[in-house]
Amino acid sequence: MTQTSESATTRASGFRQSPAVAGAIDTIIAEMRAGADQITEIRGPIDELIEPYEECLRRAADSRGRALLYPYLGSGLGNGALVELMDGSVKWDMICGIGVQFFGHSDEDLIRASLMAATEDTIKHGNLQSNFGAFEFAETLIAEAKKNSDLAHAFVSTSGAMANENALKICFQKHAPASRVVAFRGCFMGRTTTMSQIGDNAAARVGIPLNTHVDYMPFYDEVGAERVGTARYIGSAVERLTEYFDRYPNQHACFIFELVQGEGGFNTAPRDYFKALMELCRDHGVAVWDDEIQTFGRIDRMFAYEMLDLGEYIDVVCVGKMTQACATLFTERYNPKPGLLSGTFTGAGVEFAAGTRVIERLRDGNYYGQNGTNAKHYQLFCEHVRALAAKHPALFPKAEGVADIVGGVGGMMRLTPFGGEKGPIVRSCQTLYDEGVIMFYCGHGPYHLRMLPPLGVMRAEDWPRVFECVERGLLAVAG
Amino acid sequence: MTQTSESATTRASGFRQSPAVAGAIDTIIAEMRAGADQITEIRGPIDELIEPYEECLRRAADSRGRALLYPYLGSGLGNGALVELMDGSVKWDMICGIGVQFFGHSDEDLIRASLMAATEDTIKHGNLQSNFGAFEFAETLIAEAKKNSDLAHAFVSTSGAMANENALKICFQKHAPASRVVAFRGCFMGRTTTMSQIGDNAAARVGIPLNTHVDYMPFYDEVGAERVGTARYIGSAVERLTEYFDRYPNQHACFIFELVQGEGGFNTAPRDYFKALMELCRDHGVAVWDDEIQTFGRIDRMFAYEMLDLGEYIDVVCVGKMTQACATLFTERYNPKPGLLSGTFTGAGVEFAAGTRVIERLRDGNYYGQNGTNAKHYQLFCEHVRALAAKHPALFPKAEGVADIVGGVGGMMRLTPFGGEKGPIVRSCQTLYDEGVIMFYCGHGPYHLRMLPPLGVMRAEDWPRVFECVERGLLAVAG
Amino acid sequence: MTQTSESATTRASGFRQSPAVAGAIDTIIAEMRAGADQITEIRGPIDELIEPYEECLRRAADSRGRALLYPYLGSGLGNGALVELMDGSVKWDMICGIGVQFFGHSDEDLIRASLMAATEDTIKHGNLQSNFGAFEFAETLIAEAKKNSDLAHAFVSTSGAMANENALKICFQKHAPASRVVAFRGCFMGRTTTMSQIGDNAAARVGIPLNTHVDYMPFYDEVGAERVGTARYIGSAVERLTEYFDRYPNQHACFIFELVQGEGGFNTAPRDYFKALMELCRDHGVAVWDDEIQTFGRIDRMFAYEMLDLGEYIDVVCVGKMTQACATLFTERYNPKPGLLSGTFTGAGVEFAAGTRVIERLRDGNYYGQNGTNAKHYQLFCEHVRALAAKHPALFPKAEGVADIVGGVGGMMRLTPFGGEKGPIVRSCQTLYDEGVIMFYCGHGPYHLRMLPPLGVMRAEDWPRVFECVERGLLAVAG
Amino acid sequence: MTQTSESATTRASGFRQSPAVAGAIDTIIAEMRAGADQITEIRGPIDELIEPYEECLRRAADSRGRALLYPYLGSGLGNGALVELMDGSVKWDMICGIGVQFFGHSDEDLIRASLMAATEDTIKHGNLQSNFGAFEFAETLIAEAKKNSDLAHAFVSTSGAMANENALKICFQKHAPASRVVAFRGCFMGRTTTMSQIGDNAAARVGIPLNTHVDYMPFYDEVGAERVGTARYIGSAVERLTEYFDRYPNQHACFIFELVQGEGGFNTAPRDYFKALMELCRDHGVAVWDDEIQTFGRIDRMFAYEMLDLGEYIDVVCVGKMTQACATLFTERYNPKPGLLSGTFTGAGVEFAAGTRVIERLRDGNYYGQNGTNAKHYQLFCEHVRALAAKHPALFPKAEGVADIVGGVGGMMRLTPFGGEKGPIVRSCQTLYDEGVIMFYCGHGPYHLRMLPPLGVMRAEDWPRVFECVERGLLAVAG
Repeated sequence: MTQTSESATTRASGFRQSPAVAGAIDTIIAEMRAGADQITEIRGPIDELIEPYEECLRRAADSRGRALLYPYLGSGLGNGALVELMDGSVKWDMICGIGVQFFGHSDEDLIRASLMAATEDTIKHGNLQSNFGAFEFAETLIAEAKKNSDLAHAFVSTSGAMANENALKICFQKHAPASRVVAFRGCFMGRTTTMSQIGDNAAARVGIPLNTHVDYMPFYDEVGAERVGTARYIGSAVERLTEYFDRYPNQHACFIFELVQGEGGFNTAPRDYFKALMELCRDHGVAVWDDEIQTFGRIDRMFAYEMLDLGEYIDVVCVGKMTQACATLFTERYNPKPGLLSGTFTGAGVEFAAGTRVIERLRDGNYYGQNGTNAKHYQLFCEHVRALAAKHPALFPKAEGVADIVGGVGGMMRLTPFGGEKGPIVRSCQTLYDEGVIMFYCGHGPYHLRMLPPLGVMRAEDWPRVFECVERGLLAVAG
Repeated sequence: MTQTSESATTRASGFRQSPAVAGAIDTIIAEMRAGADQITEIRGPIDELIEPYEECLRRAADSRGRALLYPYLGSGLGNGALVELMDGSVKWDMICGIGVQFFGHSDEDLIRASLMAATEDTIKHGNLQSNFGAFEFAETLIAEAKKNSDLAHAFVSTSGAMANENALKICFQKHAPASRVVAFRGCFMGRTTTMSQIGDNAAARVGIPLNTHVDYMPFYDEVGAERVGTARYIGSAVERLTEYFDRYPNQHACFIFELVQGEGGFNTAPRDYFKALMELCRDHGVAVWDDEIQTFGRIDRMFAYEMLDLGEYIDVVCVGKMTQACATLFTERYNPKPGLLSGTFTGAGVEFAAGTRVIERLRDGNYYGQNGTNAKHYQLFCEHVRALAAKHPALFPKAEGVADIVGGVGGMMRLTPFGGEKGPIVRSCQTLYDEGVIMFYCGHGPYHLRMLPPLGVMRAEDWPRVFECVERGLLAVAG
Repeated sequence: MTQTSESATTRASGFRQSPAVAGAIDTIIAEMRAGADQITEIRGPIDELIEPYEECLRRAADSRGRALLYPYLGSGLGNGALVELMDGSVKWDMICGIGVQFFGHSDEDLIRASLMAATEDTIKHGNLQSNFGAFEFAETLIAEAKKNSDLAHAFVSTSGAMANENALKICFQKHAPASRVVAFRGCFMGRTTTMSQIGDNAAARVGIPLNTHVDYMPFYDEVGAERVGTARYIGSAVERLTEYFDRYPNQHACFIFELVQGEGGFNTAPRDYFKALMELCRDHGVAVWDDEIQTFGRIDRMFAYEMLDLGEYIDVVCVGKMTQACATLFTERYNPKPGLLSGTFTGAGVEFAAGTRVIERLRDGNYYGQNGTNAKHYQLFCEHVRALAAKHPALFPKAEGVADIVGGVGGMMRLTPFGGEKGPIVRSCQTLYDEGVIMFYCGHGPYHLRMLPPLGVMRAEDWPRVFECVERGLLAVAG
Repeated sequence: MTQTSESATTRASGFRQSPAVAGAIDTIIAEMRAGADQITEIRGPIDELIEPYEECLRRAADSRGRALLYPYLGSGLGNGALVELMDGSVKWDMICGIGVQFFGHSDEDLIRASLMAATEDTIKHGNLQSNFGAFEFAETLIAEAKKNSDLAHAFVSTSGAMANENALKICFQKHAPASRVVAFRGCFMGRTTTMSQIGDNAAARVGIPLNTHVDYMPFYDEVGAERVGTARYIGSAVERLTEYFDRYPNQHACFIFELVQGEGGFNTAPRDYFKALMELCRDHGVAVWDDEIQTFGRIDRMFAYEMLDLGEYIDVVCVGKMTQACATLFTERYNPKPGLLSGTFTGAGVEFAAGTRVIERLRDGNYYGQNGTNAKHYQLFCEHVRALAAKHPALFPKAEGVADIVGGVGGMMRLTPFGGEKGPIVRSCQTLYDEGVIMFYCGHGPYHLRMLPPLGVMRAEDWPRVFECVERGLLAVAG
């Protein structure tokens, strides 16, 4: 049925390359820019919008059956790290949807990509029918991943939880009938029934029957390791893992690693710790699955396994959040049989377009390495916390089991006021929000305040302004 | 910190209501329309694009580690039920990404909504931070759902599988410690580790450990019911369900119903069948969970439970596919405790915007009822199949256990050539694709060919043209 | 360290062959006989013993924390089917500890064997250290089992539940990692946490977590088979089993068969029913495990698989109850790896000695075949039930789903008064006990009265005397 | 139906009190004594019996499908700690069927009790019908248990594994729906499918599917505790248990304690260790289940919880081995609902009779306390090991992680030659057997040689003779 066409391009190409379209998008961006540029500092709500905003909050709560955690409804416009809400108030967004908006609010480049994608014939793509964007996204991601690992392919999905589900399926099938999982204490894996069980937080799975066999390993504990010495500490972890492998020979499908723990508390560990555990996995035929959903892009290398030089051990990796589209990457050896992975949705075209741009910008920018943007911002963050602590030492009493009042790496920043106690830390979140800076907490005791700031658009001069809010907020809690 | 603003609107409102933006979007739509209007019939690829297309297919296969099921890469433009591929070929899309594109390809209204959403400050929204679109979508959906049920709230998520996971979590928590699930034979629930287990298809869970306790019920079997009489048939189903409830008292959290089975074969059942089973569930304190992910919108009422007048029994409902954004709806009684449902992503703004429009158009259009568009198209479909069978009776030998050569309801259309045998049915899919019509199969033996056509944009006069392709394809398989 | 001894026998042989020992045992037996011979008819308690008996019942209840089901405390003497209680009362024992005492009470031969075994150096034997009795028992049993099957070895244990546990372990290991079990509806497997789950009686596992995956098959239903025809009935069972095997390919370790259901209601099935299911098992590599713990010895052949000519299909068999010692028999193919089966106890020497004698007597007696003792007694039982029903038709209203008012085979005898209703059937047990005959119920609805009489010592002339009690008892319940 | 009898006793009483029976039993005992008295020292086989013995070993292996672990077939006669085999050889029995024969071989008192029990009308008793012996046994046991605990009732069964199954059922039901178990690393619980999973030895459950959720605690490690200090060691154990309880709130039914680990290596722990863990259990509503199957009777008090003064914390206790009959003891609070515990067999009359005598003799003898027989024998054992080590230091190189070359308590005695290495330890067992002393190993690395000697009949002067064999055997291995 092949035919020679009058023109050697598709109708779609014609349309998408039309100067009229390009001009229209320029117009929209210019309008957006004009609005965004007026958002330059935090502010409170516009009087006339207070009531309508309350009404919107009520409708949101009604629709989902529960009030929002923060009374946050974005207006649809922001400017870098500043975001406007529907009541006209403006805040520093230092949490960015739990790390989703690395390039902040109303980023020109991403909006441009989204607009172009929004012109496509369908909004959502899937495994049966898809435009090319999904594969371009996967290709761009894999190209980066390959640089320092054997990762070869990427299966795209719509959420981090689903990326993790696919990773688990891959590991299970590869090592069938092994049915056990090793995970770190305090880990978080997403919100499916299975991931809620692997995730080490009882509060997130009240009422869910337990049917997944998980063996937990302690995450590296800086304080503990100092006490007994790093070598002995690692040795004792290796002993624990050996105990599991001996107890259940050939019954573990995978060890799921967060190389920097997210919900668990922005905890880090030295390379040797992971290396010893990953080698043991390799020796026992247990998949090394690296969950980079929260770390991806925002630390001292694009992938945490690069930062720690662990690429050779990696079998499966998940990414998400700032990538917009989520994905499970795997080596050739772990490529599953046909029929295991599928799904109606891989995602929306705008996600692929924006996600591809995010990866390209991370790749081409100057984010990584000791002198990269991420490291520099982390340095600034630390300086500000220490200055705050020097000024108000009462805000930072000694926290049991916490090595320092600051912690994390790159764009995963934590501070530990109030001795890491749950009560004041949780209260701080609300107070800080009211004072104009959006943050969240992490850890399961000790607790920390955390930031996942939009490092892609943060400026050095933003930090003092952010910390003014932080100072006001913490003092209010200490009150 | 409240302040009186010079203007009583947000910067965002200013920008989004700007005439320049509206004009720009009009421009884009006009350009799109111009291109789309040239797509008027099926055709083969443009010669010059054959090789580049092969290269793209190879890249897609490389990126995900496996060749595509259909060699389909959309160009990004289509016209109603016709879709252009990246090689310039055009096909009838009678499967629409498994029911996702009810309004076909390059729908003006949906693209307009997407463009506007694409101007927002962030692409993805979540449970911690969101613009209002997610709630507007949920509100619009709930308003429809409430009309004939006690459904009260909707929790939005990014895939049908995740909507189902949330439904399962809700049921488990409500009925904790009940840990068993009742499901229909042949059901499909999505692709998580848990849903793959509930879904009744061994091929989809090779290597996944079994840890979910599922008790299967036969789906209504028209042929079987005729043999013994409907009353006795229903009685025997009630007996089976009673056996489960007696065997495991208070240990079932839910019965998951597909009121029209999707992957299972577009099977339907009379109201009395479901009513008897749902009443038994109600009497035993077992949640009635209605999975409408494939049925939603496309049958004789917006919700299948409306079509069957079963709203009073419904505790939890999932929707997805054509809604773009997915959701779990539940009654007040099933509203879970805080902490059970959450997630980084609820979805993209474009999905909420387009999804809201889809529901509004279904609501305001003339799709439902005996004289609705959906029913009329189904009627046309049946007529064409019967005409085809009359012309080529050899294509339609008697299929064991299949009551009729056509089946389904509304926009869920199946035909059963080749006696429902797997081999020729699966081969047909490829042949039909080559002949210019994209369809898929369903059922697990007998097998059927299925269509999930874009009824929102189909015209009566399209059917003969679609069936020309079908005829060519089936004859080719019959050889 | 080998040494030439003055005598070529062990000290033990010298002792056990001593005429003084033989004489002493003769003396004891003679005394026993003299006492037993005075027990010739049922009678009520001795006045002076009523109070002491009550005290003993109270002590028994105190010791175990719950009153006895029947107020039964044996005196330690009986005479065939008659047993004396500690209060001097005498009853017909038609249940024999649920089939344990096939040779009734105070059987000379078994007591003689027990006395000799009681002279041994230790009472209990085990897998590390054992006298030869355990192996002699196993040898004797295997010799019989081999006659019509490939069974090759026997692992001895102390209870039927433990024999079943060992059978399950054998099946699991052979077919690892298959983890599912097929079982008949209404089956009973013993009282471990696992067997309580496989056993189909929710009341027996209140509070026990469900972690074993069991797929239930209907046991043959005579009434149902008649309605649709045997061939179609069997076909539908094969279809159900095929459904399970398709749903969970290679995931079933075994199908556990009771060829005559015990607790389930003394249900029987034709050879073709089992044959069809066993062939399907064989074709799918699923172990055929035959639980003969209640049937062994007491029906029309020593093994039920012989009666039904199914020996060729049998992989694993369990025996118990009347064998005193219990055992798991298996073919060479199913011989497990070292380390799977073990245990401190295999049993007591008296059990092996008596168990061996039981098997020898069954082997050498005239119990089996159409004219065997077991069949004749069953015939007499049926005649008495029919005569009773003829005399008191009101006692035997039609029981839903029960083909006949009598049922079972050989020494597994059931009658179904009161329409099989639970209430009067359970009450009957107590009333019959009071009237001088000990029976029990079986089935889970309909319910039946059952006898497991001591056919090894029953005489034809006992039946009218037993049925006098039965008549009185049932009339009392009917009121 | 009550009647006045001519005599106010049962026929059974008449028989059992007959002087002829008493005389006959005296005769048997005298004959037995005469034979036993000739067994006074170890010796090799009688030449003429070597071949017949081989044949018997072959038959034993054939019957069970696997050769015996030791080539041991008892003749049925012994003398205290000496046992005669069927080939006329005599050995020191220092393992006693894994602790079953506390009163050694051919004990007059126990044989007398067995003979009398062997005259009863039935051999096996059960929950439906039983003579009084089962309750007398339970009563005697409970009377002792009550002295220092709240234990109130005992459910009798035929094996330690079954006693543990009943304990688990009791704990599960009491704390339903809690489904998790806490157990010590290296524990052993018996041989059912469930107990094989809780028991921490992968080799014993090859092929058994894992479906029981067990959280393991380290057993007290003397070496480790010394390194960090006892208080910190206990604190860290409490922290681990707290982690489990926090991770799975209200989901643990029980913590199963062996107060001295048996198979795990005869490990002991200080009271404070158990106390801290038991208190945490009590605070979290988790049953404290004390498995005394191997410890019962043989250490410094009848119950290990008495030795450690922990009776107040005990909810459920299991005993077995030397008690002949096994039992699950529980407090009033843990008395399960009707229907949970049952079973065809509680055990044989001889077991109840002998078991009752065992308890009475332990109660009335001088076994316990610092100057009790058990402690004295342990002292002698230690002296002999140390003397051996002094003479042959090369036999006892330093064993990693083992505090001393001797260990255990009372009649649980271990020595650790060869640095606790598996190879030579396992070889030692066979060599020692050949040299005339039967022992076994324990531990899972380090490994130990263990004795469970018949302390009820051992004499101080036996130890040098036993250790002559030990010395020869170990030197042979060291070779």
